[in-house]
Amino acid sequence: MFTLDVALTPRLYSLYAHPDSVVVVIDILRATTAICTAFENGVEKMIPVATLEEAWAYREKGYLLGAERNGEKIEGADFGNSPYDYMGDHLKGKTTVITTTNGTRAIEMSKDSHQVIIGSFVNIDVVVNHLIQSKRNVVLLCAGWKEKFNLEDTMFAGALVDRLAEHEQFADVSDAALIARYLYANAMEDPYHFLKNSSHRKRMQKLNLKEDIRYSLNPERSEIIPVLKNGALVQLSR
Amino acid sequence: MFTLDVALTPRLYSLYAHPDSVVVVIDILRATTAICTAFENGVEKMIPVATLEEAWAYREKGYLLGAERNGEKIEGADFGNSPYDYMGDHLKGKTTVITTTNGTRAIEMSKDSHQVIIGSFVNIDVVVNHLIQSKRNVVLLCAGWKEKFNLEDTMFAGALVDRLAEHEQFADVSDAALIARYLYANAMEDPYHFLKNSSHRKRMQKLNLKEDIRYSLNPERSEIIPVLKNGALVQLSR
Repeated sequence: MFTLDVALTPRLYSLYAHPDSVVVVIDILRATTAICTAFENGVEKMIPVATLEEAWAYREKGYLLGAERNGEKIEGADFGNSPYDYMGDHLKGKTTVITTTNGTRAIEMSKDSHQVIIGSFVNIDVVVNHLIQSKRNVVLLCAGWKEKFNLEDTMFAGALVDRLAEHEQFADVSDAALIARYLYANAMEDPYHFLKNSSHRKRMQKLNLKEDIRYSLNPERSEIIPVLKNGALVQLSR
Repeated sequence: MFTLDVALTPRLYSLYAHPDSVVVVIDILRATTAICTAFENGVEKMIPVATLEEAWAYREKGYLLGAERNGEKIEGADFGNSPYDYMGDHLKGKTTVITTTNGTRAIEMSKDSHQVIIGSFVNIDVVVNHLIQSKRNVVLLCAGWKEKFNLEDTMFAGALVDRLAEHEQFADVSDAALIARYLYANAMEDPYHFLKNSSHRKRMQKLNLKEDIRYSLNPERSEIIPVLKNGALVQLSR
């Protein structure tokens, strides 16, 4: 029997951190959606870094760089964190570097767990199957916004809880997992409409990212799970 | 215009802490319910302390002591944190000391704000009115369970958000406040039934505290707001 827990913000992650757990990093608007989209479009490897300093050091060595802070692409980077930046053939077989306000920090933070995988609505089905087959404790790590709670990451965590909680192996579903599931139950019919009050979505509307939000909530689906191996995200082989 | 925010667990409080804010400490099962009940039953003053060491030091000086850890009364204390321990005439005009697993630590943590008040379903109506009249930023601080999220404190925070968010003065309602409100909307028809999956409630059922839970969710109502003044809880004069 395994536990299914949700770290509602990165600041709470250390309460759940364990070397034997599988961690799903969740940053729906937009880092983990963009990462899953990049792998579906053929990227070979993505190196997540927490700071801009590390990111520029890689770029000086010739790597393509995706960099975002406060919802906007960093000037001089090759991409931001819009999933649309990662569609097409231009990344096929390439290794890129990525740094974002919240998502890549959450990846960094969880690296001492048994396995870190990247989740989004892009790959939700394979993530669910993987977590069931893993036979391990699961922590859903919501990247949030600058250590605070946000609706969209928790809503996605709730979508995972909704599909996992019925499996007998997850006997211990925490209060945080339950509230995520309630949130998803409230949102599932029309998540775009549901998020209309989200502070993050309001911020992103200012940035004119309506299409990114629609895509992030109802994307093309992928069968690929990005997994952290030796400090870089690669495709999980199954 | 003011902000209305919810610290979903004490570990998140520092993200919201501000010397000009009013903080409502919430520990529905059972510290803040018990404190409100004690004031309704005539207690004069309650000294909240975070550690058992401080608590015993007070008791040696002759104070009555309410002390709970992990849901159970500490042996040798005069009371635990059941609201039923604080009903009747035995506390009228007295000063007592109280220490609990979560609630009294949350009080300690928030003492540098403009004002710390104690909220529960016992005094929800007067708390709502006070927050509207305060014309300040409000932080609802959920005591949770050992720094983790719990359903019942967030549900009560949601009940407050539900009544406050319609007031124009609270222009900025955060994602954390919104999820609390959704939780309350899901729970309000039958909160006792709703909490049946709560880990805390399951723990408390083991301790045979069904009556405490029923009372905490649907108590006799009080018009008294306990407020922290010079390190002790007293009745807010209005």
